[in-house]
Amino acid sequence: MSPQKKLEGLVAATITPMTQDGEINLSVIGQYVDYLINKQGVRNVFVNGTTGEGLSLSIQERKQLAEEWVTRGKDKLDHVIVHVGTLSLPESKGLARHAAEIGADGIAVIAPSFFKLVNKDALVAFLRDVAAEAPDIPFYYYHIPHLTGIKICVEELLDGMIEQIPNFEGVKFSATDLLDFGRCAKGNDKGQFALLYGVDEQLLSALAMGATGAVGSTYNYLGKINNLMLEAFASGDLHSAQKYQFCVQEFLGFVIAQGFGVPQIKAVMSLISGIPMGPPRLPLSSASEEFVLKVKAKLESLKSCPYTLH
Amino acid sequence: MSPQKKLEGLVAATITPMTQDGEINLSVIGQYVDYLINKQGVRNVFVNGTTGEGLSLSIQERKQLAEEWVTRGKDKLDHVIVHVGTLSLPESKGLARHAAEIGADGIAVIAPSFFKLVNKDALVAFLRDVAAEAPDIPFYYYHIPHLTGIKICVEELLDGMIEQIPNFEGVKFSATDLLDFGRCAKGNDKGQFALLYGVDEQLLSALAMGATGAVGSTYNYLGKINNLMLEAFASGDLHSAQKYQFCVQEFLGFVIAQGFGVPQIKAVMSLISGIPMGPPRLPLSSASEEFVLKVKAKLESLKSCPYTLH
Amino acid sequence: MSPQKKLEGLVAATITPMTQDGEINLSVIGQYVDYLINKQGVRNVFVNGTTGEGLSLSIQERKQLAEEWVTRGKDKLDHVIVHVGTLSLPESKGLARHAAEIGADGIAVIAPSFFKLVNKDALVAFLRDVAAEAPDIPFYYYHIPHLTGIKICVEELLDGMIEQIPNFEGVKFSATDLLDFGRCAKGNDKGQFALLYGVDEQLLSALAMGATGAVGSTYNYLGKINNLMLEAFASGDLHSAQKYQFCVQEFLGFVIAQGFGVPQIKAVMSLISGIPMGPPRLPLSSASEEFVLKVKAKLESLKSCPYTLH
Amino acid sequence: MSPQKKLEGLVAATITPMTQDGEINLSVIGQYVDYLINKQGVRNVFVNGTTGEGLSLSIQERKQLAEEWVTRGKDKLDHVIVHVGTLSLPESKGLARHAAEIGADGIAVIAPSFFKLVNKDALVAFLRDVAAEAPDIPFYYYHIPHLTGIKICVEELLDGMIEQIPNFEGVKFSATDLLDFGRCAKGNDKGQFALLYGVDEQLLSALAMGATGAVGSTYNYLGKINNLMLEAFASGDLHSAQKYQFCVQEFLGFVIAQGFGVPQIKAVMSLISGIPMGPPRLPLSSASEEFVLKVKAKLESLKSCPYTLH
Repeated sequence: MSPQKKLEGLVAATITPMTQDGEINLSVIGQYVDYLINKQGVRNVFVNGTTGEGLSLSIQERKQLAEEWVTRGKDKLDHVIVHVGTLSLPESKGLARHAAEIGADGIAVIAPSFFKLVNKDALVAFLRDVAAEAPDIPFYYYHIPHLTGIKICVEELLDGMIEQIPNFEGVKFSATDLLDFGRCAKGNDKGQFALLYGVDEQLLSALAMGATGAVGSTYNYLGKINNLMLEAFASGDLHSAQKYQFCVQEFLGFVIAQGFGVPQIKAVMSLISGIPMGPPRLPLSSASEEFVLKVKAKLESLKSCPYTLH
Repeated sequence: MSPQKKLEGLVAATITPMTQDGEINLSVIGQYVDYLINKQGVRNVFVNGTTGEGLSLSIQERKQLAEEWVTRGKDKLDHVIVHVGTLSLPESKGLARHAAEIGADGIAVIAPSFFKLVNKDALVAFLRDVAAEAPDIPFYYYHIPHLTGIKICVEELLDGMIEQIPNFEGVKFSATDLLDFGRCAKGNDKGQFALLYGVDEQLLSALAMGATGAVGSTYNYLGKINNLMLEAFASGDLHSAQKYQFCVQEFLGFVIAQGFGVPQIKAVMSLISGIPMGPPRLPLSSASEEFVLKVKAKLESLKSCPYTLH
Repeated sequence: MSPQKKLEGLVAATITPMTQDGEINLSVIGQYVDYLINKQGVRNVFVNGTTGEGLSLSIQERKQLAEEWVTRGKDKLDHVIVHVGTLSLPESKGLARHAAEIGADGIAVIAPSFFKLVNKDALVAFLRDVAAEAPDIPFYYYHIPHLTGIKICVEELLDGMIEQIPNFEGVKFSATDLLDFGRCAKGNDKGQFALLYGVDEQLLSALAMGATGAVGSTYNYLGKINNLMLEAFASGDLHSAQKYQFCVQEFLGFVIAQGFGVPQIKAVMSLISGIPMGPPRLPLSSASEEFVLKVKAKLESLKSCPYTLH
Repeated sequence: MSPQKKLEGLVAATITPMTQDGEINLSVIGQYVDYLINKQGVRNVFVNGTTGEGLSLSIQERKQLAEEWVTRGKDKLDHVIVHVGTLSLPESKGLARHAAEIGADGIAVIAPSFFKLVNKDALVAFLRDVAAEAPDIPFYYYHIPHLTGIKICVEELLDGMIEQIPNFEGVKFSATDLLDFGRCAKGNDKGQFALLYGVDEQLLSALAMGATGAVGSTYNYLGKINNLMLEAFASGDLHSAQKYQFCVQEFLGFVIAQGFGVPQIKAVMSLISGIPMGPPRLPLSSASEEFVLKVKAKLESLKSCPYTLH
């Protein structure tokens, strides 16, 4: 494994830009990289994940998109993590090999979610077989039980993980079970693993419980304010950290109440960044015009919050 | 569309035979075809579905397996339906074209299940785009809400379906909501659609509600007794139909209480048919030895039931 | 136990009439009894159940209401079953004693639903302790897992039930798991138990699986058409039975799509019977005016169905 | 309303001691009060809640138990909050009046949970009608959506609450949705409400998000260590706070993995406090001997943690 800088701070779960007819639009990735760095202060990305509609893309498209991010991010981004999870072990193995070949800084895998009666040993074996195809780059497990239905505790998974997966580096933990998260953090006293929290709207609660960073869709457009929160928290200024967190929650609480999925994330990012993210691909359908208008009005009303708009 | 015989009666949701290391084992498909016809009286198959671990296979493997079933089933099987559902529209379109090219008798598509906020129009559009790649063969929608989490009523989907998908032919309905099923049946008074019930352990209830046939994993090894039930029901002999149904339930109730997923289905089929189905592929793990012994004992105790064992 | 007539056919889960301020209105029970018998052909009632907001009433109110039904139904109704389930064992025991004292024809108990980690033995012990307070009248278990969250199979409960509860007489089975129901029916070959189905909108499916009767809210106003279905089914005329079932489903599918709970049931009954059922009690709130208007229009459009309107 | 001291810090959700045959055992309440104060440093109690099997008791028993706690706690405990929630509005109103009469320091109400289609206005109206029966003592809403199924956001409920319920004082928030909790905390900048967190195993995360205190069953026997955590957090020593939290999680993670409900809580409390809590009442059944032995061994292994054992 390369003596790489540890993954810390914010990681943007990237959106996949699309044309009006639902084809991937590689042409704006360069602009997207610059926006994240210059406007949001975010230097790490997680490509082809849930937000990126990774599972809605073809294998070929996922490879193209990963390559584009690695190429455009070179000497600019710190970490380009490529999500290679699929429902099919051979497909995920192929994507893992490809990610290593193109020079990605790490791979991540979600639990295959179609079958629900999956036990710990089988899940670890699945992850191990994928990780072994890219043994020289870090491997991250992507835990998101409300989407996958696979509820095996991460703390249980970590027990013995490093023996099975020597390149295991950390977890994207997208769940509100902070007992499980805290138990992972307790075992991480030497900071050996990246414990990246993935429920953006309550990041502060996970920082208190030992999170070392965060991965999420909202860091695409709320990176700056979240960085301020991380800094305040790190300096022991909990009061300021809460102030930033509540400001983030004011916005996210609002959009979540409207129904906030990938289509809405794409619309919000287009609105705030000015980079056209386009519609989502089927089976998702575009956010409504009404939603976009409401978000615009809400952003206006939040001017006292330190958001960066385009 | 070919003036093909309507799909009726039992359809076996095929198991994918695998070697001990989880590779597909095409060599027994020919034997499998003969077993279904000669021992179970089943002449229709549904390939690469849930039971077949279709979503755990690579795209390439799915094509190979579909070809093998079409080739081996030629002049023997009445209908080889190829399931082409995936999470990715372009991949499903490719599989649909392939199925048409190799001469499949129909294709089926499950609702893409990773994203849950899917509405009717978007789901129909997804299905339509896949169906349009194989316009000359029948198209079936595969409804299994407890696995996909997509709970849009089939009756609602059917409204306007034929305008969107001219080759729409029917539904595999794997749910216990017999209000929804009955409303589909009411609209099917001319028998224009195949309403294939997919909760094997309570098929009789759906026959009473207008089912025209059935698709399921248990018809691989319980085809004979279910055919007897279909005959009794068709002749108005409900008492005999109940007798067969209760006999099936005695067995299925037993195995379901043990935890009955694809690994267990493979073990039961290997046991009853004598054809080696092998283990499942990761993320699934093999049925336990204890399960197999219990099933053997249960089958012994059910000798009075008209099961056909090898 | 009295050598009473077996409970068969339809049982109306009674609505509790209320005044505008949510107090029970005993004054219309007499009229209600006559309406059920004369207009709907229903001679059995299930009092203080889910439909009757039994758990929203005080213990004192439940006793008053039970007495009123027994008094008004005397020599008119065949069976007045009083639901005595509560979350508290001593309260349920008190209600059971009271029901026996006033001359009810049976009692029923729902699984106490606040705690979810309830096992079979504890549930049977709870039921047994209640049943023992009214040992001379029939006891019915009320199974409604989607509301209680208690999912223990009825077939499992029945195993050994009669030893624990000598006055056990049957089940109100409000679930779509017809495997479980069928297994109960198989064990009921001598017709020793009343297997009363409780998912009104798919009753025909349960008749095919061995139901001996039905309990539900819709038999308050759809009794006549359901009686026609029962007769058609009993005479072997499945085609006519389906015709009636589809007609019922046309209406129930419509109202269920609008959101169909106790407030809506009360509004529909008021509309069809002409007897004022009033609003529900808090925490429920009245059906909307819009709902009532939609139902009126739907009923108009269903004139070809053999509904009895007031 | 009395110019009472604000409710802060830990509140023990009291267990209801019972005899071997499931009758309440009032005789140990005095000893229980002294144990909480002297051994655990806990001076507030929440009586007749979930942990106390409040909904399994009769109305009469709830009154007796509330009286005993008020009597025994006089001049010793700071706050005796009586939970008066039931499924029935008139019963809850009666309990509220009684609590006020006996001199309780506040009442709390859980959302009535049998019916699920409850909207905000109806829930607030229910709470209001109960609160109005005890207008001179503080009122707390008890939010526990995973048990009640009532998922209305607390932040939404709080909007306008004080106009409806002038004696509204705060929330017992037993959920992991810390977006909702944080939004309540944002509105609580003047500390006007008690925001009492109720998921004991992750309390630290809620402190970071603005909790003003905590209510839970584990403060019966883990009060001392949690008080240390509260102090460390208040003094800005997050590192020590984490140390205590991880220690608590080590124990709670262990017992939760075994299945940790009220029966197990009673067994753990009996073991640690030495006060006999007895078995639970039906429909719950006693914790297994095996569970008790495992807990003993676990407690032994945790000697380095600052637990207080008897």
